[in-house]
Amino acid sequence: MPAADAAAVPADPLLLRAARGEPVPHLPVWFMRQAGRSLPEYRALREGVAMLDSCMRPDLVVEITMQPVRRHGVDAAILFSDIVLPLKAVGVDLDIVPGTGPVVAERFTTPRDLERLRPLQSEDVAYVSAAVRELVAQLAQLRGAEDGGVPLIGFAGAPFTLASYLVEGGPSKDHARTKALMHGEPDLWHALLSRLAAIAGAFLRVQVEAGARAVQLFDSWAGALSPSDYLRFVQPHSASVLAGVADLGVPRIHFGVGTGELLALMGDAGADVVGVDWRVPLDEAARRIGPGNALQGNLDPALLFAPAEIVHAEAAKAIDAGRAAPGHIFNLGHGVHPATDPDALTRLVDFVHDYSAQPPA
Amino acid sequence: MPAADAAAVPADPLLLRAARGEPVPHLPVWFMRQAGRSLPEYRALREGVAMLDSCMRPDLVVEITMQPVRRHGVDAAILFSDIVLPLKAVGVDLDIVPGTGPVVAERFTTPRDLERLRPLQSEDVAYVSAAVRELVAQLAQLRGAEDGGVPLIGFAGAPFTLASYLVEGGPSKDHARTKALMHGEPDLWHALLSRLAAIAGAFLRVQVEAGARAVQLFDSWAGALSPSDYLRFVQPHSASVLAGVADLGVPRIHFGVGTGELLALMGDAGADVVGVDWRVPLDEAARRIGPGNALQGNLDPALLFAPAEIVHAEAAKAIDAGRAAPGHIFNLGHGVHPATDPDALTRLVDFVHDYSAQPPA
Repeated sequence: MPAADAAAVPADPLLLRAARGEPVPHLPVWFMRQAGRSLPEYRALREGVAMLDSCMRPDLVVEITMQPVRRHGVDAAILFSDIVLPLKAVGVDLDIVPGTGPVVAERFTTPRDLERLRPLQSEDVAYVSAAVRELVAQLAQLRGAEDGGVPLIGFAGAPFTLASYLVEGGPSKDHARTKALMHGEPDLWHALLSRLAAIAGAFLRVQVEAGARAVQLFDSWAGALSPSDYLRFVQPHSASVLAGVADLGVPRIHFGVGTGELLALMGDAGADVVGVDWRVPLDEAARRIGPGNALQGNLDPALLFAPAEIVHAEAAKAIDAGRAAPGHIFNLGHGVHPATDPDALTRLVDFVHDYSAQPPA
Repeated sequence: MPAADAAAVPADPLLLRAARGEPVPHLPVWFMRQAGRSLPEYRALREGVAMLDSCMRPDLVVEITMQPVRRHGVDAAILFSDIVLPLKAVGVDLDIVPGTGPVVAERFTTPRDLERLRPLQSEDVAYVSAAVRELVAQLAQLRGAEDGGVPLIGFAGAPFTLASYLVEGGPSKDHARTKALMHGEPDLWHALLSRLAAIAGAFLRVQVEAGARAVQLFDSWAGALSPSDYLRFVQPHSASVLAGVADLGVPRIHFGVGTGELLALMGDAGADVVGVDWRVPLDEAARRIGPGNALQGNLDPALLFAPAEIVHAEAAKAIDAGRAAPGHIFNLGHGVHPATDPDALTRLVDFVHDYSAQPPA
């Protein structure tokens, strides 16, 4: 698209255009967990500040969210937060334990525990609204309009993943208690997920109303489920979250790890963009999902420890495979590993921009 | 098959017949990790005995291997051992740390480390041969010939999974060092995997020569790989292990977790039976793999914490889906969880036998 046209009518950010399957001059790229431990400037800021505390301080949220945008030149910012934050915000007693993850003081076991999950009000997360507004202002200053600027992606944890933390009391390898609850007490399960869907949906709405221009619903653990369990016990509630923000008109990205068998079901839940991990080549993902969804992904984050020429060759394969989809947002297939060399990420952004700007070989 | 015929010509065990795609009166069933912590009699025997020590004592190996066969009435025994045992047997300094898993004293990093991986001789694992011989004798006493008796399955860890332990120094979530080595130093990688394939193949051979009637090659971590990485860096070496025991004429089962995208490639590696985790319905697995392989699996082990009627309904679904394959060995989609109620496993064996003996609805 010639620069003159872009100046005449301000273009939407690349990420939004790719999400809608519109042509883009080059692929938009961002990285899950781009704001975080791989960056020395992040580690310096977080020194002595507990994870959830940092998510509740707008000054830290803004700075941490901006760090990778400045450093890497990615095409989107993603709000620095944590998927359990909205649970904390409605009063669930939990903390994020370094080296372990979220730990819930009292496991969810009975119908009475539903009372702990009251609806989320925007006042509960006023610090998030404040951070988003400030971020939108800072991002608007950052780059010329020719690519439409750098949008902020809001996010929330999906009902199943939140439920797993509540039911297991913390991270779980097998989600055994969670699966026992869904199968053994389906009414309680659906009541629990309905409440969590309402909380997740409200949390996304707060972010979009403050200026986020896209949302990602993370179902980190959905890949632990068989397709039939996902369809019966999870998809309706993820669909409820995504439908609840449909009126806001922002692209809805939906992602989980190990979800090769669930990709079509996750698209059907109402996602505009389906995130794909590195296990499923993007052309195969496009085949499974069908023509209705753009894709996001999917370089194996572990490859970033390999030499640059390998990283770029694999990124090129992902870009080429992604041409099978109506739109492609380049990303890793999972979050940035904390030990990743940040320079490798910066080089990858440049490579993706250059390679995807060229016509297919 | 009428009992008179079976008496005239001793039938092969159900497991072998199912592996070859021959008709069976009911499905054979066994459980990965059936010998282990879910059984109180196992926990009593292991008291004060380190894991690897227990694998090196034929008396313990025999008793632990027999426990689930007696208790549950499963259709196969699987040798109680550990995938790192053959590494220990060739002199690699490693231990199994309770709550962590295998920990290797010195990580594999350079070509000089190859010297630590000398070929495995049968004398290195004389205790395994002794245990297998005794097991075969005990199993022969156990049950009438009408179903062909209860075979012993030998097993080994596949080269990739063994390599990951050596390269990472222990269990890893992301296998980042392993992937960096395969991509960054492919010659060293292939040399490492060739040595590990020789060790794994020799370990399987020892077991079959002592009387094991089937083998399972466990590639526990293969599901962490993209199909292209698996094809280039792993499949040739797993194929070498499986080809190395082809002359022994026993069914070769090949299994890994999260391998939905790799199932066909694992079949092509030379497996007779492909093990499937609970994420991929067996009819879809059969479609991906093609008509040449029997399947093993695939009830979600976490479901065993749900009420029995749910467990059995899900088992019935797996059995029905498995009819799409030429043969089906019923199993879980991963190992038995240590907290599983053993009675739930016994009831499941009975259910699988009854349900699969009936014609499809």
